[in-house]
Amino acid sequence: MHIFYQPEDNVFELEEEEARHSSKVLRLGSGDMIFVTNGRGLLQTCRLNVQGRKVGYEVVESELIEPRSFSVNMAIAPTRKAERNEWMVEKMTEIGVERIDFITTEHTNPETLNRVVNLGRLNRIAASAMKQSQQFYKPIITVNNKYESFIKSASSDTKLIAYVPDQNRVDHVFTKIEKGTGTTLLIGPEGDFSEREVALAIENGYTTVSLGPTRLRTETAAVAACHAINLAQIL
Amino acid sequence: MHIFYQPEDNVFELEEEEARHSSKVLRLGSGDMIFVTNGRGLLQTCRLNVQGRKVGYEVVESELIEPRSFSVNMAIAPTRKAERNEWMVEKMTEIGVERIDFITTEHTNPETLNRVVNLGRLNRIAASAMKQSQQFYKPIITVNNKYESFIKSASSDTKLIAYVPDQNRVDHVFTKIEKGTGTTLLIGPEGDFSEREVALAIENGYTTVSLGPTRLRTETAAVAACHAINLAQIL
Repeated sequence: MHIFYQPEDNVFELEEEEARHSSKVLRLGSGDMIFVTNGRGLLQTCRLNVQGRKVGYEVVESELIEPRSFSVNMAIAPTRKAERNEWMVEKMTEIGVERIDFITTEHTNPETLNRVVNLGRLNRIAASAMKQSQQFYKPIITVNNKYESFIKSASSDTKLIAYVPDQNRVDHVFTKIEKGTGTTLLIGPEGDFSEREVALAIENGYTTVSLGPTRLRTETAAVAACHAINLAQIL
Repeated sequence: MHIFYQPEDNVFELEEEEARHSSKVLRLGSGDMIFVTNGRGLLQTCRLNVQGRKVGYEVVESELIEPRSFSVNMAIAPTRKAERNEWMVEKMTEIGVERIDFITTEHTNPETLNRVVNLGRLNRIAASAMKQSQQFYKPIITVNNKYESFIKSASSDTKLIAYVPDQNRVDHVFTKIEKGTGTTLLIGPEGDFSEREVALAIENGYTTVSLGPTRLRTETAAVAACHAINLAQIL
């Protein structure tokens, strides 16, 4: 049975894109059964009631899926290409992520920011990846977080920053994860974090970690790190 | 210093794309120093000798970098979109992979194959990712491998197939990796491997493995699995 996304509770009608997909692509009609999730754990089994373009539904059964016992919170300086930021959000969502906060750092170009990080589009991509991977929690995505404010406000049990100073041996992120707790990991821009930014993170309780022996592009680093944290939690 | 790729030994001249990048983008000229790798471990420090469009070089120092003590060999049924296959090759190369063999399975559509798996393009993408991530071995990429022949010919120490039969508990790929040896991992198409294909793999010494609790698209599965194998080797 197909899964649809309706973030608004108590509306009982699919939004335009979902409605079009249901009627025109899947050719579902009145009486057909679908799943609907709100992306916050609610999974409803529903019977369609289609009137013209309006795709309404009646809830037959409702279940609240428990959230995961741990959380993965990624704070990332966006890359300069919209496409790569979108890939990153899609892949992290498939693998499993609770929050994606885009942060602006010293080496982030502010002029390109709005162009390469379109929140509406990123939310649609995350919702689509959530349905595709049969999950019922959509990651919370925010943009335009200033680095300094973000550093001071993040409240996970484990706070990490992907940064390897020359010649220092730094532990791999995988080894720093505590099962059943929340982790926030900072991923810097292509030009890396500035020394001042790293010092500020350390002052605020962050630990530097490595993401592996090869040099990764920002979007690869984000996906690999998200995956490493998930592995450390489930294995 | 910038790294260039010249797979042909004893030519001492950059190929067209690399030459254009050197002269027009980086504006390097005679006397400037560059690194050149052949993608098979050779790293040469060279002095440029530019004559018009011809970008030649003189080798000043030569080093053969040891290959890794383990190997990661990915055998993947291509996705239906060229862009996703290209993304997959780029990301696996950044993370570290020795071979990428594209396999045709029962559920692979043969008509789309040549259109979505362009070997020349994939090799260029892999070479670019290799340079970007400062590695000196380019993965060997092959296409059009028939599943049955591939299964019978692969010779790694550890042979795995990503497949989770309903209701069976299957170990995660991470737990099956032996340090310092070679692993071959099969990733199936969106429609999954057929039961016959899985049986054939098991007959030929393959073990089924899981890639985690969420359902991943083929290209995400390939990158996540490649990453998991690398982590198991280096941690």
